[in-house]
Amino acid sequence: MSYRFFKSSWSGVVPSIKRLHSFVSLTRRYRHISDFAGEFESWKSMEALRRCSANHVPLSPITFLERAAKVYRDSTSLVYGSYNYTWAQTHQRCLKLASALSQLGISPGHVVATFAPNVPAMYELHFAVPMAGAVLCTLNSRLDSAMVSVLLTHSEAKVVFVDHKLLEIARGALDLLAKTNKPPPILILISKWDDDSSPTSLEPGTYEYESFLETGHMGFEIRRPKSEWDPISINYTSGTTSKPKGVVYSHRGAYLNSLATLLLHRMQSMPVYLWTVPMFHCNGWCLAWGIAAQGGKNICLRNVSPKEIFENIALHNVTHMGGAPTVLNMIVNSPDRKPLPHKVDITTGGSPPPPQILYKMEELGFRVTHLYGLTETYGPGTYCIWKPEWDSLPLAEQSKLKARQGMQHVGLEEVDIRDPVTSKPVPADGKTMGEIMFRGNTVMSGYFKDLQATEEAFSGGWFRSGDLAVKHPDGYIEIKDRLKDIIISGGENISTVEVETVLYSHPAVLEAAVVARPDNHWGQTPCAFVKLKEGFDVDAQELIRFCRDNLPHYMAPKTVIFEELPRTSTGKIQKYLLREKAKALGSLS
Amino acid sequence: MSYRFFKSSWSGVVPSIKRLHSFVSLTRRYRHISDFAGEFESWKSMEALRRCSANHVPLSPITFLERAAKVYRDSTSLVYGSYNYTWAQTHQRCLKLASALSQLGISPGHVVATFAPNVPAMYELHFAVPMAGAVLCTLNSRLDSAMVSVLLTHSEAKVVFVDHKLLEIARGALDLLAKTNKPPPILILISKWDDDSSPTSLEPGTYEYESFLETGHMGFEIRRPKSEWDPISINYTSGTTSKPKGVVYSHRGAYLNSLATLLLHRMQSMPVYLWTVPMFHCNGWCLAWGIAAQGGKNICLRNVSPKEIFENIALHNVTHMGGAPTVLNMIVNSPDRKPLPHKVDITTGGSPPPPQILYKMEELGFRVTHLYGLTETYGPGTYCIWKPEWDSLPLAEQSKLKARQGMQHVGLEEVDIRDPVTSKPVPADGKTMGEIMFRGNTVMSGYFKDLQATEEAFSGGWFRSGDLAVKHPDGYIEIKDRLKDIIISGGENISTVEVETVLYSHPAVLEAAVVARPDNHWGQTPCAFVKLKEGFDVDAQELIRFCRDNLPHYMAPKTVIFEELPRTSTGKIQKYLLREKAKALGSLS
Repeated sequence: MSYRFFKSSWSGVVPSIKRLHSFVSLTRRYRHISDFAGEFESWKSMEALRRCSANHVPLSPITFLERAAKVYRDSTSLVYGSYNYTWAQTHQRCLKLASALSQLGISPGHVVATFAPNVPAMYELHFAVPMAGAVLCTLNSRLDSAMVSVLLTHSEAKVVFVDHKLLEIARGALDLLAKTNKPPPILILISKWDDDSSPTSLEPGTYEYESFLETGHMGFEIRRPKSEWDPISINYTSGTTSKPKGVVYSHRGAYLNSLATLLLHRMQSMPVYLWTVPMFHCNGWCLAWGIAAQGGKNICLRNVSPKEIFENIALHNVTHMGGAPTVLNMIVNSPDRKPLPHKVDITTGGSPPPPQILYKMEELGFRVTHLYGLTETYGPGTYCIWKPEWDSLPLAEQSKLKARQGMQHVGLEEVDIRDPVTSKPVPADGKTMGEIMFRGNTVMSGYFKDLQATEEAFSGGWFRSGDLAVKHPDGYIEIKDRLKDIIISGGENISTVEVETVLYSHPAVLEAAVVARPDNHWGQTPCAFVKLKEGFDVDAQELIRFCRDNLPHYMAPKTVIFEELPRTSTGKIQKYLLREKAKALGSLS
Repeated sequence: MSYRFFKSSWSGVVPSIKRLHSFVSLTRRYRHISDFAGEFESWKSMEALRRCSANHVPLSPITFLERAAKVYRDSTSLVYGSYNYTWAQTHQRCLKLASALSQLGISPGHVVATFAPNVPAMYELHFAVPMAGAVLCTLNSRLDSAMVSVLLTHSEAKVVFVDHKLLEIARGALDLLAKTNKPPPILILISKWDDDSSPTSLEPGTYEYESFLETGHMGFEIRRPKSEWDPISINYTSGTTSKPKGVVYSHRGAYLNSLATLLLHRMQSMPVYLWTVPMFHCNGWCLAWGIAAQGGKNICLRNVSPKEIFENIALHNVTHMGGAPTVLNMIVNSPDRKPLPHKVDITTGGSPPPPQILYKMEELGFRVTHLYGLTETYGPGTYCIWKPEWDSLPLAEQSKLKARQGMQHVGLEEVDIRDPVTSKPVPADGKTMGEIMFRGNTVMSGYFKDLQATEEAFSGGWFRSGDLAVKHPDGYIEIKDRLKDIIISGGENISTVEVETVLYSHPAVLEAAVVARPDNHWGQTPCAFVKLKEGFDVDAQELIRFCRDNLPHYMAPKTVIFEELPRTSTGKIQKYLLREKAKALGSLS
């Protein structure tokens, strides 16, 4: 066996090797690849490899349904009241629906909208629309006619599926559209699953969902995406800060976020998922697709109330559910609440849940996972991954840890807190605020027809969330505020979230939101909007005193207003409305 | 609101709609997209979208390690005897190792080989080699010098990492290579983790793993794949049927199969995985990467014995492990076996496990998942997904169901049983045999430097496994034989697996393999090779009679030979050697 001489071109390795193996002469001892480069046959790249249908398919959630129809064929796919479907049936129905859409003229790239709560049609459309090659646009079911007409125009939807209880709002929207001389989308009415609706109310030009579906054929050949980058859905943002934007998801991103979200939810084979998260919101955090991947059971609800939640958990052996902190708040403050018959995993996201609510949820028997994300990150992006060593901490301490937004799930490349201006990472000191930035395959493709907004959101090669957070020494992030919500008072930054957390810890407070009130002297001062629990009565002075006892004085609200808080349909408080109110109050000083 | 007239071009939908809604004139009632095509602005594709670093990253398991180093930073990544590492340390070590490799001259596309059992270096190299942009080629640690030299030549490996206990075999291989006048790869000796080894045994031109690693820098910039289709590893097949082939895995396939395998294993956050599956086999069924994705704890073992398995399960609270049926056989027949202190999920694959063994494993407290796949499918491809309704069946019945290979995991597009000649699907009757074929993103890129074999394997757009199976009415597949193993006797097909299953059910039989013996009259007859359990003594006639009592007579072996069965390193019986023996016996009639 012959060894070559070590050449001088190789540096850096020498000193430490030398230290460790000084017992032989280095010059005779070590070799470098360049010593025999050219002596091997040149590395023939990988020319014998073949990319073909056997080993390459564009990633798409459509696969999940096709597999479920085989693997979980006779298992229940979906329950809605007294209706039950199996995965084989759901697959067949989606095929027929896709077929019917294509017979109607829907072609790849067309947008198909929905305007409905979590009824079975919503689940089916999550597969049927992409199977027809089209793009699903799920409108928030709590929008008014004006907003629906704006979004139908912007999305250029060719068809809109409308729940029968939302028909009047939809008709109002179509009337508004008609005034603009643009042809309105074809309306397909969803009325099958409720006894109190009747197809005789159909107007000319309108279809009924079930009979429309029945026109389709099961032999329909699925129009699969040509590229996994093809769009699968458009989700309009809930508009907490500005005009709604159409966030475009790709088949690839939807596939990858579905799997990451399954792992985040700790969903094993055949979970039972109670749909308390609206499917129109980030496609149900991608679980409309994800549940099919695990052959789970979808328990659909038209209305989400604590009574229905507790009934369904017991009736269907629910294993998982989700919801904004509003839903959690509703559960822990409901007279219908009771200890659970078995552990239920609940994920919460949308805004930071007050530790008090987390604590009470755990007491009832829920295992709460706190996640964070935006419409732009397909819903879940980070979560507060639980460390076993935290199990032995006092519950109150656990709740505080759990209220943090945590770390990125497995589908993302990187989440970091960076200075919004310089883009430099902030130190992990738990104090320095920066903007949460995302990078990875589960970040949106961009904003539909809004290149400027897309480029702004991606400037610097990261998706800029607009949320302000700190990074703790253990790397976990914690949101302090929206970039646009932060209050600057006398030169000090005040995190409205921190003030709200203190307000929530007051026994009389049901809901609280803090915004900036303009001030001639301080620039801004904190102004709290509060809703009290029933039967409680405290005044502004008491709450201000409570905040001063629990916060630096400059952070305590100077104004407290008692009223119902305006919310988006996803449960987020519409701070821009409150900011307008606070602005109208004028300066305090 | 104006509605257009229905146009005649739209057919097929009319009759059923008419039936359901005959109460209004169809011609005035329904609309079609083509009615107003052209009136909308033309659909502007998705021109405002941007594919950039914020939302598109080539899929690669490297991400798993980088994320684990942040999310699971201080949690244990790996245990080997008294050695312990955290995820932060493993990440740092891999960075340094990648850096050292690149300083040595390793460039993107170069092949780096390993020749070692499941020692910590094997785990680190699964990340460090791809991080250096190179391709990992893990050689089976049970190969001899001749075979190692063949594979080092074929793979054109520039570096080979060798375990100190395999040094002599490796040196033998390098000596053989030297005779061919090709420069041998640089040898790096793995000796850190065992007390009985010493770096003073290093020969000139040879590095020692730990000091080599120490030459690297933590600031190393990872050489990420340019395309996710780039190769990450080469796995040589174990050679049950013909000359070894180098199966190439891509970063994309490795990423996707890792996630699918995690879901298949029901691995939640931070599992504890006992490495009884060799990492050199399909990169440990992709779990070398997958465990990092879930921040799990890798318990590495040099030698796998029932004693060590039971000790480690108790010591480390093992949650998951895996192994060929040989490992299960070893466990249930060991004097060291004892009921487990807690449930352990064990996945088995490689060959169909006899129901008797499954049954005994469950009795000990293991929860057995049976999976099936080939090197060409990144290891796991299908598994016997358990249905809750089977829980109430008798255990023996459950074992029979579980011995089936089941259905594809979520990473694959389709698995089907098709006629090897016509490629038509066979009926799901549980009787008609066909070839198992795969299609999806977790099928290999091809065979390294073997275009002909690649094209044969992918002919018809499916990966042809060479395994024969039936499809049961519930869609689950069950392997009957290797295409090359099937015995044709008097025109009847005999599944050697079925005969072996009966032999295994005999109380005296420890191991059995059945092959074809040439026959002048019948064409072929079944010939059984059997190893008896210690202390048992039965003769050929008794086993033949037992088979005739439990099988159609034509399927019972005509010959029984008692001897040790030759196995590949992954526990598969080397039937081609037995076939040669049976052939040498000549005709019976």
